[in-house]
Amino acid sequence: MRVIDQRALPFDLRVLELRTVEDVAKAIESMAVRGAPAIGATAAYGLALAEATGADLQASARRLRATRPTGQDLFAGIDFVLRGVADGRTAREAAEAYVRADEERCLAIGRHGKRLIKPGMRVLTHCNAGALATVDHGTVMAPLAAAHRAGVEFFVWVSETRPRLQGARLTAWELRNEGIDHAVVVDSACGLLLQRGEVDLVLVGADRIAANGDTANKVGTYPKAVLARAHRVPFYVAAPMTTVDFGARNGRAIPIEERAESEVLEWNGAPIAPPGTRARNFAFDVTPARYITGFVTDRGVLRPAELRAARRAGKGGTASRSGRAGRTSK
Amino acid sequence: MRVIDQRALPFDLRVLELRTVEDVAKAIESMAVRGAPAIGATAAYGLALAEATGADLQASARRLRATRPTGQDLFAGIDFVLRGVADGRTAREAAEAYVRADEERCLAIGRHGKRLIKPGMRVLTHCNAGALATVDHGTVMAPLAAAHRAGVEFFVWVSETRPRLQGARLTAWELRNEGIDHAVVVDSACGLLLQRGEVDLVLVGADRIAANGDTANKVGTYPKAVLARAHRVPFYVAAPMTTVDFGARNGRAIPIEERAESEVLEWNGAPIAPPGTRARNFAFDVTPARYITGFVTDRGVLRPAELRAARRAGKGGTASRSGRAGRTSK
Repeated sequence: MRVIDQRALPFDLRVLELRTVEDVAKAIESMAVRGAPAIGATAAYGLALAEATGADLQASARRLRATRPTGQDLFAGIDFVLRGVADGRTAREAAEAYVRADEERCLAIGRHGKRLIKPGMRVLTHCNAGALATVDHGTVMAPLAAAHRAGVEFFVWVSETRPRLQGARLTAWELRNEGIDHAVVVDSACGLLLQRGEVDLVLVGADRIAANGDTANKVGTYPKAVLARAHRVPFYVAAPMTTVDFGARNGRAIPIEERAESEVLEWNGAPIAPPGTRARNFAFDVTPARYITGFVTDRGVLRPAELRAARRAGKGGTASRSGRAGRTSK
Repeated sequence: MRVIDQRALPFDLRVLELRTVEDVAKAIESMAVRGAPAIGATAAYGLALAEATGADLQASARRLRATRPTGQDLFAGIDFVLRGVADGRTAREAAEAYVRADEERCLAIGRHGKRLIKPGMRVLTHCNAGALATVDHGTVMAPLAAAHRAGVEFFVWVSETRPRLQGARLTAWELRNEGIDHAVVVDSACGLLLQRGEVDLVLVGADRIAANGDTANKVGTYPKAVLARAHRVPFYVAAPMTTVDFGARNGRAIPIEERAESEVLEWNGAPIAPPGTRARNFAFDVTPARYITGFVTDRGVLRPAELRAARRAGKGGTASRSGRAGRTSK
């Protein structure tokens, strides 16, 4: 199984060869593979790899579940494959079906979301929710690319996204490849840009959406939502219904991953703070549903209150066993 | 004239030898010297250097005024020395008086502000407003150090402050030297920390305060103010009265410096974004007075509406010719 090492992009295109479930788990933990839907697809294929190498499927599923606590698609992908196997398919067949469906979901997000992008708009985004973060097309990137290909001219503010710079490294790279006009700013610039009226729309991805619409996404999303509200700018979340965790009543049930402090304190191995300095590295924050104008999903643009109804109408969503109240991973 | 090169701290203690007014101007422009009060003191000594080297005082003042547009103390320092010379003092005598007064102002800020720091508090700060940013003692750092020396135990969240990392590099170093417990976080973490109830007080410095209390400070200050309000956490600005520009009616009259995009796009000379990527690098933002609980000044803790009265009572403040509406420097 081969994956692009996103840590090296855009400067090096390195491909990692994953030979065991442990390799897959480490690729997810180290963020060589990142982006909630891409993690889900990688974990699904990880179970196909378990099957091919004769590893125990349930033990492999447990190992993969333990890689990262916040993103919902990880659990959705694993559950999908396990259900497929229970229904008599091979893990590989089920993984392939999951991955094809992920691609379809992103294309549908693009179709539904492109109407939000109007000529001349300045769109603020955060982190990376493009093709790299999914199987293909992306969540935030799908509507942007669809609008651009339809001839709509607009501009994107790319929030660099410390500590791992997914905005400056990955989103800037994808926008460049699409030919969409953009500029990078430090994460702290969001207030100034909104205050000056330089943002018409905020559009971000999601790692997990609770049943009430509270949304976990890369740390720094919540400040943008509060500022967007203060300046009456619409704030949209682009995500497939697989990212909705109906087992989590609200955002308090979403565990927030805390990662190694070295991600904050070092840059390419060199320190950015005095030796011995401590840091805290919370990877996500939760934006309460009341700050979210709408969700751009594969099932249409929904208001937070419409998520539950969309589920009752059989429009997707998942309820994994992963929602543990108040848990913070180290 | 010798100054510490703050760009190399905390890893190297480099001292720059400044031999001409142009050297002084370049040290300010390049941020080898930074921090509004430190810039004011350096510019004041720059005029003493002009005097010593036989350079034209008015031309030197013009050159120094043109270095950075936002911080008020630059203009306060220059005006103070020019007034001193007009009154028959040497520029050196006037500069020395200004610098002694700056030190006194910081000590007074410490005396007035230390009462805000209660046992067990978690204080969130941004950028650096310590001894390095002033002649000595600092503005934000003065109350923190005073409280710590009085035996109050508390904790400081250090916002790293992209793009130049004055928080991670300089504030963490100064807190360490004082023995004050702290941890570094990325700038984007402010929302999560406030939402989780992990912040009891936000305390930041200022580069220029308009007459109505609107405050320009390092970009990223305004988001913290809006979030502090959303979570009912007090937000204080520590600054001497010399930072108040009574010539600026409100924040719209404060010019916001825009610096080179390379500060965002490069790290120690290596790119962090794809080649050819554009960036915008706004160095400051303006926090409206309505978000500010109070100003910790050398004349006491004042509410925004009390600034004008403090001036009428002869308590300081300056009205330089530098307030130009809407100006953005490149």
